[in-house]
Amino acid sequence: MKYTKSVEKWGVFELSCEGSSSGNPFTDHHITATFESGHERKTVAGFYDGDGVYKVRFMPSHEGIYHFNVTGNFSGESYCGEFTVTPPAPGNHGPVGVCRTFHFAYADGTPYYPFGTTCYVWELQSDELISQTLHTLKRSPFNKIRFCVFPKSYCYNSREPRSYPYEGTPVDGKSVNEDNVWDFGPGSEGNNWDFSRFNPEYFRHIEKCILELQQLGTEADIILFHPYDRWGFSTMNKEQNELYLQYVASRFSAYRNIWWSFANEYDFIGSKTEADWERFAEIICESDPYHHLRSIHNGVKFYDHSRPWITHCSIQRSPEGTTDWRGQYGKPIVLDEMQYEGNIPFAWGNISAQELVRRHWEALCRGGYGGHGETYVGENLWWAHGGELKGESPARIAFMRQILEAAPAGGLKPKAMEWDEICVVPEDETAEKESGYHLFYYGIHRPAFRWYHIDDENRYSVEVIDTWNMTITKIGEFAGRFRVDLPGREYMALRVKKCDSLFEFCKRNCPA
Amino acid sequence: MKYTKSVEKWGVFELSCEGSSSGNPFTDHHITATFESGHERKTVAGFYDGDGVYKVRFMPSHEGIYHFNVTGNFSGESYCGEFTVTPPAPGNHGPVGVCRTFHFAYADGTPYYPFGTTCYVWELQSDELISQTLHTLKRSPFNKIRFCVFPKSYCYNSREPRSYPYEGTPVDGKSVNEDNVWDFGPGSEGNNWDFSRFNPEYFRHIEKCILELQQLGTEADIILFHPYDRWGFSTMNKEQNELYLQYVASRFSAYRNIWWSFANEYDFIGSKTEADWERFAEIICESDPYHHLRSIHNGVKFYDHSRPWITHCSIQRSPEGTTDWRGQYGKPIVLDEMQYEGNIPFAWGNISAQELVRRHWEALCRGGYGGHGETYVGENLWWAHGGELKGESPARIAFMRQILEAAPAGGLKPKAMEWDEICVVPEDETAEKESGYHLFYYGIHRPAFRWYHIDDENRYSVEVIDTWNMTITKIGEFAGRFRVDLPGREYMALRVKKCDSLFEFCKRNCPA
Repeated sequence: MKYTKSVEKWGVFELSCEGSSSGNPFTDHHITATFESGHERKTVAGFYDGDGVYKVRFMPSHEGIYHFNVTGNFSGESYCGEFTVTPPAPGNHGPVGVCRTFHFAYADGTPYYPFGTTCYVWELQSDELISQTLHTLKRSPFNKIRFCVFPKSYCYNSREPRSYPYEGTPVDGKSVNEDNVWDFGPGSEGNNWDFSRFNPEYFRHIEKCILELQQLGTEADIILFHPYDRWGFSTMNKEQNELYLQYVASRFSAYRNIWWSFANEYDFIGSKTEADWERFAEIICESDPYHHLRSIHNGVKFYDHSRPWITHCSIQRSPEGTTDWRGQYGKPIVLDEMQYEGNIPFAWGNISAQELVRRHWEALCRGGYGGHGETYVGENLWWAHGGELKGESPARIAFMRQILEAAPAGGLKPKAMEWDEICVVPEDETAEKESGYHLFYYGIHRPAFRWYHIDDENRYSVEVIDTWNMTITKIGEFAGRFRVDLPGREYMALRVKKCDSLFEFCKRNCPA
Repeated sequence: MKYTKSVEKWGVFELSCEGSSSGNPFTDHHITATFESGHERKTVAGFYDGDGVYKVRFMPSHEGIYHFNVTGNFSGESYCGEFTVTPPAPGNHGPVGVCRTFHFAYADGTPYYPFGTTCYVWELQSDELISQTLHTLKRSPFNKIRFCVFPKSYCYNSREPRSYPYEGTPVDGKSVNEDNVWDFGPGSEGNNWDFSRFNPEYFRHIEKCILELQQLGTEADIILFHPYDRWGFSTMNKEQNELYLQYVASRFSAYRNIWWSFANEYDFIGSKTEADWERFAEIICESDPYHHLRSIHNGVKFYDHSRPWITHCSIQRSPEGTTDWRGQYGKPIVLDEMQYEGNIPFAWGNISAQELVRRHWEALCRGGYGGHGETYVGENLWWAHGGELKGESPARIAFMRQILEAAPAGGLKPKAMEWDEICVVPEDETAEKESGYHLFYYGIHRPAFRWYHIDDENRYSVEVIDTWNMTITKIGEFAGRFRVDLPGREYMALRVKKCDSLFEFCKRNCPA
């Protein structure tokens, strides 16, 4: 038995034991460990990692001494031990969870505002391209990335993966037609997989990528199933799917930065029924003892996001419905797909940077969170492979992230809506009252001026924000009813913050 | 009795007679004439024009000799006479009517494609401003203008009119708040009108304006009622409204370029019920013997456009529903309000030129017709007063009009719709087949290329149209399946026309 004697809080404690290689170790043998400290007790399933090695991973949520006991038929021996959990290193805030109904926070209470992007199979590319993606992410505003466990076969995303998740051999199926959105490749006939035997190297590599994301402070929004397949991974049977989910849960759950996305475009996966999805959710809920965030992303038709296992709504659609969806589901609204900046011949991948940035602001100013993707015709499409970003939206999304991070902590809620103006205030009522913070957004509308009247008790500082040109211009400080002149351009916002009570202001400035 | 001995076809024949000034000539006396030629026979009500003069106007639809008889209690004498109808002068195509269900044509068969604008009370401004408006219209793409008979009291549209439609005196009510869309002025108390006595000069002036529009080839889309009122013209009683409609019909109907718009924003006029509108329609149908086009424009809620008296749908809304409305009502779809280019602090008047032009193309490429308006803050707002145009959309609308006029005659019908591509072909099936004409529009979407396959029998010429930069670039001539490279910018269109049959092409170019 090998294990680390010390691990930071929310780090990965890993123990590994030699065990039997006989039969099919993935299905015939099991390993389980129970972890206990003064504060928690968890029983966690381990997994077979190949070469006669069994592993159990655990993410401790408390500092101090932990004891563990290992059981299972993987070996004749029995094991136990202890280790020390140290304070989290700087930058380690724990896993992200839902906070204040519509928002997110890390386990240590630090707010987390999702700024997601999508690179479906970035982790299945060459080392060089992976390292370029990480380099790009580090300089980007994105703190969440959606990607698939299984390789993807689709227009502009047709490469063979660097390796395969199962033992066996694929057919050569590279003949995807790049101009046809419905061409998933030649079909899965001819592939020869043993769906009961995983390729541990494939998953070790994904784990390395998850850890590298973690070092960047990026959440890994892991897509478990998707329809775009020429290998047969989307049409495995019930038992094969369950084995896969248990294996993935036992390998990935201890990484604090993972989220479970049950599907990309679940409604385009003809081979699975609602009962299947519900069963998959059961397995993940049972197998992930840390209850990482769980969602299921639509193509067209929403899944029933009111299901209790769904922690937040992961939505593909334009963000105009955000406020309604908040009301309908009472959960955070994350618009992971709002169409992508790019120029491919498909509607979902050829909008302008201006339009994608507008949709981000619409999402934010209706009380939700937008998501990014980029699809410019070329060798590597960010949305598929990662690599480098070419577009103009990331800089503006970074600017928007600064605005949100400078707002009172805890996220924003919709306050009012006009045809040509939407407005958010802090979700937290105390913060709302204390800050007097209002963020107005005008979208494509271009009023030359606007009258406002927040209240008669306070003075407010008012700034005009040009969300495209990324400027913030202070207009002045006002009390009562006041007029704001605006530049008469598209994509403007207005930030209003309480700067003083009138009482205090008068005490300082008025003659006695 | 005075009258012109000769008038062109679809011109205005006018006869005027001295008559009684006793009592109230507008209500106590009437004048009617019957006109007859070999081809038509019409009985037409005349009107009192003040100073003891009664008039009857008639628009002949046929060339040749017409006889007329005048009757009525306006005078003790009886009159008859004859006149000659000559061929129409160049540019006189007669009144516009519906043609091919969804489109329009002049009475002589020339297609009419509406390119409308809105200047609600341009005709009630100073002579100088009116003449500036006409000068602007002459250089514009607009061949239809919406305006009100009654003055308007609203933000950015609060001037007193040059005169008043009734005998009496107004209160001074200029105190409209320009920043408040719901301020119609001080209410109608204090106005002192005799709603049974018209001011003929007021109507003579409007007729002069109608004729000036006619000389420019511009249709006068006359708004009979609207809600934005501080004089009391929107709250007259049943008898007063009926008298008004009869008077207006007897004065205006003989002008070939008028259309009847029963209301602007009928649903915002609280004083009138559906039964009222239906009764008004009855009166106009009875009193206008030429059956000029009739519509009723919504604020939010559509009137039931399937009513038989409604000739076309005059709609306020974004044009995405155009194809559905065609199917629902089986009438031409004219989007007279799609929000206006401008920068006033109201959603309906602060969109960009790009967006207004995009909406025009959306309307066209879904089988309808868009409408223009301009609301830039300043002394004269085009939408209210006319004057000069400041915006960037008219030049692009002119460009679009050229495209439509170069298409096979008779209008376009929707053929196919994708998320990021809409397509129209000629409404007329023969024209569709013969021309092979297709107009594709991509809106905000920016595909870098596209594959097309029209058929295998013909060769097609293909042009890329930049609807904003107003360029047309020939890409080539193609047969079978072909790829079109596009510039990857917003607001692109593609024009495809049959240039040759493959058979003819081969006969000319292939070795024997």
